[in-house]
Amino acid sequence: MPRKGKRWIFAKHFDGFPKISDMRLEEFDIPTLKDGEVLLEAEYLSVDPYMRPYSARLQTETVMIGQQVAKVIESRNENFPVGTWTLVSSGWTTHTVSDGKGLIKMPLPEGVPRSYAIGSIGMPGVTAYFGLLDICTPKAGETVLVSGAAGAVGNVVGQIAKIKGCRVIGSAGTEEKCEYLKELGFDEVFNYKTTKNLDAKLKELAPEGIDVYFDNVGGEFATTAVLNMKLFGRISCCGAISGYNLKEPEKLSAIYGKMVFSQLKMEGFIVTRYQPRWAEAITALAGWVKEGKIKVREHKTDGFENMFKAFTELFTGANTGKAVVKV
Amino acid sequence: MPRKGKRWIFAKHFDGFPKISDMRLEEFDIPTLKDGEVLLEAEYLSVDPYMRPYSARLQTETVMIGQQVAKVIESRNENFPVGTWTLVSSGWTTHTVSDGKGLIKMPLPEGVPRSYAIGSIGMPGVTAYFGLLDICTPKAGETVLVSGAAGAVGNVVGQIAKIKGCRVIGSAGTEEKCEYLKELGFDEVFNYKTTKNLDAKLKELAPEGIDVYFDNVGGEFATTAVLNMKLFGRISCCGAISGYNLKEPEKLSAIYGKMVFSQLKMEGFIVTRYQPRWAEAITALAGWVKEGKIKVREHKTDGFENMFKAFTELFTGANTGKAVVKV
Repeated sequence: MPRKGKRWIFAKHFDGFPKISDMRLEEFDIPTLKDGEVLLEAEYLSVDPYMRPYSARLQTETVMIGQQVAKVIESRNENFPVGTWTLVSSGWTTHTVSDGKGLIKMPLPEGVPRSYAIGSIGMPGVTAYFGLLDICTPKAGETVLVSGAAGAVGNVVGQIAKIKGCRVIGSAGTEEKCEYLKELGFDEVFNYKTTKNLDAKLKELAPEGIDVYFDNVGGEFATTAVLNMKLFGRISCCGAISGYNLKEPEKLSAIYGKMVFSQLKMEGFIVTRYQPRWAEAITALAGWVKEGKIKVREHKTDGFENMFKAFTELFTGANTGKAVVKV
Repeated sequence: MPRKGKRWIFAKHFDGFPKISDMRLEEFDIPTLKDGEVLLEAEYLSVDPYMRPYSARLQTETVMIGQQVAKVIESRNENFPVGTWTLVSSGWTTHTVSDGKGLIKMPLPEGVPRSYAIGSIGMPGVTAYFGLLDICTPKAGETVLVSGAAGAVGNVVGQIAKIKGCRVIGSAGTEEKCEYLKELGFDEVFNYKTTKNLDAKLKELAPEGIDVYFDNVGGEFATTAVLNMKLFGRISCCGAISGYNLKEPEKLSAIYGKMVFSQLKMEGFIVTRYQPRWAEAITALAGWVKEGKIKVREHKTDGFENMFKAFTELFTGANTGKAVVKV
């Protein structure tokens, strides 16, 4: 009798907000290992907002994409003996057969929770690190605005900006998230959902304008932030979550004249471009976490069968910090 | 009897399209020179699109801003003897008294028409040079799109892009301008006013996407161009002429998701930031003009009393090339 694993199949392209009928949870037979292969068992799986726009390029009837923390439970590869903890991008599956290519040994030191390797000391943290420091080059004393600040990337952006001596303004969608951001040391926080006039709010919190805007949300929020930037302001476009589930693109005020006359720089990025410098970010982030300068918060969902629920909660504002699923 | 000069007074802030009643042509008494001063007489005055948005910051009842080519006709300053040709930013006036500060001696070699110093080998040319080369770093073989391509800046952008080995697409608003761009060597040109579906047109002319977009117009055109950029595309925001005379900002499709997932860079600039490297651009541009690699076309208006007409023609599409007024 072959052993069974479970996986989530991307069955249908999302149309607007993802529906449970767009995906399928199924069992599969775990194949017998060939020479050089290992069998991995997932411990923590990551759900991230990027999965929504990326899904447009996926073929249906394939396993949904994503990264996980997994343990080698059977090995025919001497580089990865049984018991080795790894990071693998094999998607929403409990078990993975790997020939070792692209398989990363757990980069975190002992004593740091393994789930951080898919969070603040993993892809989302590295995204925050380069998206803020490389694209926006913030200087001490500058005003940094972060949207989606209670999310996996946003909270790290704000904390790095504080480490660099900036004045940090964060926005989030619930009072509880705003409290969390205050605990993290953000200088100013506000609930964008209860803010009637965002333009007036930004002018109140940054009367001389915003030097750096780290955009996780796009849409009307991003446009209003851009229109409130200071001369030579920098904008890092990291995500546009407000638009991911829209069927028609939003209509927003023009920003081109503002781009010219305030001499703004806006750059979009995907963190994979920083692959050659990945270790630099991991080292810095792990150091800040150990020193307590970056506090980590996770939104944990139990049970592989709840992957889809954890995924859609990214878009309803239900989670604070990094969303992970524990098998 | 004091000698008389003429000047255009900015009498009222423009509201929408500039009206002749917003300005006033008047005579003034030319003061007697003090020690160290010179009297300049304008030969060519520049009218440029930037004057419209900049006017919002001007005080009323001052002389309208702008640069001119002027000759020293009286001198009490040994650095600028009578007969010296200069560039001066004294605005829309036939006569200027200067103490020599900020007064620039004509930088062009003999044999080059002096009016080029306020055109292709002056501010608009330098704008094209840095806005394309410094902000967009075009590489040979890349596809470059220029809007407002028949304008003072746009035509030079296209010609520099050709010099750098790019494939150049230009847009303009009349058939006559499109013909002009073909003569300049643009690979593809189109009349945006008669193009029913701009998105389809860009996809036809750049099926693999646009590497570099030099934006002179803003608005719907810019948004459509951004949405057709290739991975790692660069956008130089130089002007947004389509919006300068609008009373309400346009509503445009969101570009933030595209910025992220195509990893685009967009930067606005004002050419004065390149002041320390000005000579580099002038030297390059003068060289290309002499070699015939940059062809110069001017839209000359005769008569100082026609300044306002020449200015508003920038926004009605009446001029091709650099607009200058000859006194």
